[in-house]
Amino acid sequence: MAYTLILLRHGHSDWNAKNLFTGWVDVDLNDQGREEAVIGGKLLKDKGVLPTVVHTSVLRRAITTANLALDAADRHWIPVRRDWRLNERHYGALQGLDKAATREKYGDEQFMLWRRSFDTPPPPIEVDSEYDQSGDPRYAGIEVPRTECLKDVIARFMPYWEGPIQDDLRAGETVLVTAHGNSLRGLVKHLDGISDEDIAGLNIPTGQPLVYTLGEDFLPTGPGEYLDPEAAAEAAAAVANQGR
Amino acid sequence: MAYTLILLRHGHSDWNAKNLFTGWVDVDLNDQGREEAVIGGKLLKDKGVLPTVVHTSVLRRAITTANLALDAADRHWIPVRRDWRLNERHYGALQGLDKAATREKYGDEQFMLWRRSFDTPPPPIEVDSEYDQSGDPRYAGIEVPRTECLKDVIARFMPYWEGPIQDDLRAGETVLVTAHGNSLRGLVKHLDGISDEDIAGLNIPTGQPLVYTLGEDFLPTGPGEYLDPEAAAEAAAAVANQGR
Repeated sequence: MAYTLILLRHGHSDWNAKNLFTGWVDVDLNDQGREEAVIGGKLLKDKGVLPTVVHTSVLRRAITTANLALDAADRHWIPVRRDWRLNERHYGALQGLDKAATREKYGDEQFMLWRRSFDTPPPPIEVDSEYDQSGDPRYAGIEVPRTECLKDVIARFMPYWEGPIQDDLRAGETVLVTAHGNSLRGLVKHLDGISDEDIAGLNIPTGQPLVYTLGEDFLPTGPGEYLDPEAAAEAAAAVANQGR
Repeated sequence: MAYTLILLRHGHSDWNAKNLFTGWVDVDLNDQGREEAVIGGKLLKDKGVLPTVVHTSVLRRAITTANLALDAADRHWIPVRRDWRLNERHYGALQGLDKAATREKYGDEQFMLWRRSFDTPPPPIEVDSEYDQSGDPRYAGIEVPRTECLKDVIARFMPYWEGPIQDDLRAGETVLVTAHGNSLRGLVKHLDGISDEDIAGLNIPTGQPLVYTLGEDFLPTGPGEYLDPEAAAEAAAAVANQGR
């Protein structure tokens, strides 16, 4: 039995365009991000890689990406599951700050450490910050993080991967996971057995469906494949250049 | 314990604009329909009637209405359930036909009988019709109807009402049902105890949230209330005039 898993990172948001750290702030896609979602969905349809269930985070930019991509793929009618465990990394006190200004203020080394190190979280967000999510009804009953490193993201994501997502795969579903740069980096790190050091160099392109075939152990039987490898390489390079 | 149920009929579609019978044909909303959905969602937000779970049909016009309305209400993140039992009435051989031409060809009496009678279905759709849904993967495992009268819609809808929807209500959820003229007429007939004869005169306005408070028996404790009664009355009159 082989399982099919499709990963899709949401595209450009209002804050991508403004070059701000976003994290758990619930910003919307911009027009470019909407178009990326539609293109991603058309790719699924054209290549005949058709999800039968979708998992999204509870953030608008992933949800809208899933809605638009599935509509473009004529799979708008499939079951939907949402969970905060698929959310982007919480960027702590950096949420709402300009990436270029942060880089200039703290220097390249600190900037890259916060952005790409495995286990160094940014400083925690202030309780009274306008970019804090405590009290948001969608997080009722969970302890909203004040900051996260990639290791933290993986720790809260893995139970969801091993639970609801693997349950769907086991049931024979073709699972689409529509999520964020860092929740997907965490999953790809696990799937591809990437080390804590090497994960810093991995940039997941936006709007590009990445397809894995998994064995019974829920690990890949071969490398993940982008449905449009050329466009995916270009998009990954664009992500790497953010903050410059 | 009082339960809150919100009903929302999808707005104008490509085929509303063309005045065609739609039924199970999966046509898209047009721009007017998208705007109706957003206005409906803003009403929910402005009046503080906030769904915690949404049920939709498996048809694009209801799904997109739910997506747009929930986004406008900042409730895009709530759990989603979809089921074919919430679909529009199957219009049989009328699917894809022009409403005005059908009225002219068959006369006012037959036209209104097909449109509004409780238990007279239109002729069944041909198996090789381009507007037939047999073989559509979203209906795998169910017997796709070839035609339906309102009585048929109620018969297939009621198990879903008494099952998944009442389960959510019982769990304390504020349930939004985003569906179609006839699936919602069937539900309102049940809720308001409308007779088989009188249901002919009921037109549910598009894009207007209709809120019921239900008692422990899942029947209303008072009349359903439109969040914008004036706009709802106008929209209901517009529906009644279709096909003229």
